[in-house]
Amino acid sequence: MSDQEEVLFLLENLAAAEYYHEFLRENGTKDFLFIRPSGNPIDADGFEKMTLSGDVIDNYSEIIDIEKLEFLSDISAMCVFIMREKFEYKGISNDDVAIYTSILKKINNQWMFSFIHRSSGGVDMSSWSRLKQSVKKRI
Amino acid sequence: MSDQEEVLFLLENLAAAEYYHEFLRENGTKDFLFIRPSGNPIDADGFEKMTLSGDVIDNYSEIIDIEKLEFLSDISAMCVFIMREKFEYKGISNDDVAIYTSILKKINNQWMFSFIHRSSGGVDMSSWSRLKQSVKKRI
Repeated sequence: MSDQEEVLFLLENLAAAEYYHEFLRENGTKDFLFIRPSGNPIDADGFEKMTLSGDVIDNYSEIIDIEKLEFLSDISAMCVFIMREKFEYKGISNDDVAIYTSILKKINNQWMFSFIHRSSGGVDMSSWSRLKQSVKKRI
Repeated sequence: MSDQEEVLFLLENLAAAEYYHEFLRENGTKDFLFIRPSGNPIDADGFEKMTLSGDVIDNYSEIIDIEKLEFLSDISAMCVFIMREKFEYKGISNDDVAIYTSILKKINNQWMFSFIHRSSGGVDMSSWSRLKQSVKKRI
């Protein structure tokens, strides 16, 4: 697989992961950091606590668009993607569409997440279509 | 100045900027992209419209912490910083503390913003202190 194919495969595996803490321990760097929509940080241990609390049940996630994938060196990349997530929080169903900004690194020949910043879950997809039109005109 | 000093100087200038659209046209790459807390994108033209509408009056901004500054190559870096912003929106005063995730690039020997993703404005600074303690124990 090319580096790009490997990164896209990693994204698909994130969406398919049953438990984020398990996924991130295998596919995150040692200093992996996740920033929540509030701006507050959480690490793999924090995701584990959240899972064990039983408050969050992840039902279904899907990568619905990739807005930007840029290799910054042979071993680092940034990727902005949109994920749809259906989950239950304390018994209440949520259907979120959120933007994920991520930094990826190739360590020992394996692409991993080094960093993720998630937006809140009500992304207006039409705002992204309008932006693309505007960027096309400018370039 | 070293590359690190130049990047920190750029952050200070962002905080000091009177109008974001002017600042970003001088200090942003051609494909500069800003993601709002909602996950919706905005570019320099969008900031200009916001300024011209008169809805937002920026009173005071200050970089209060830098959580991460990492050079990914000689000409690219990622920086996560916390900015406090006092502003008026439609006459109502706001006092926000937000996380900014940014990608910076050195183009024609000048460091510029290539990308910014902003969290919502109610960051709990103690959550960042707790994370630092936890990371220290782990490493």
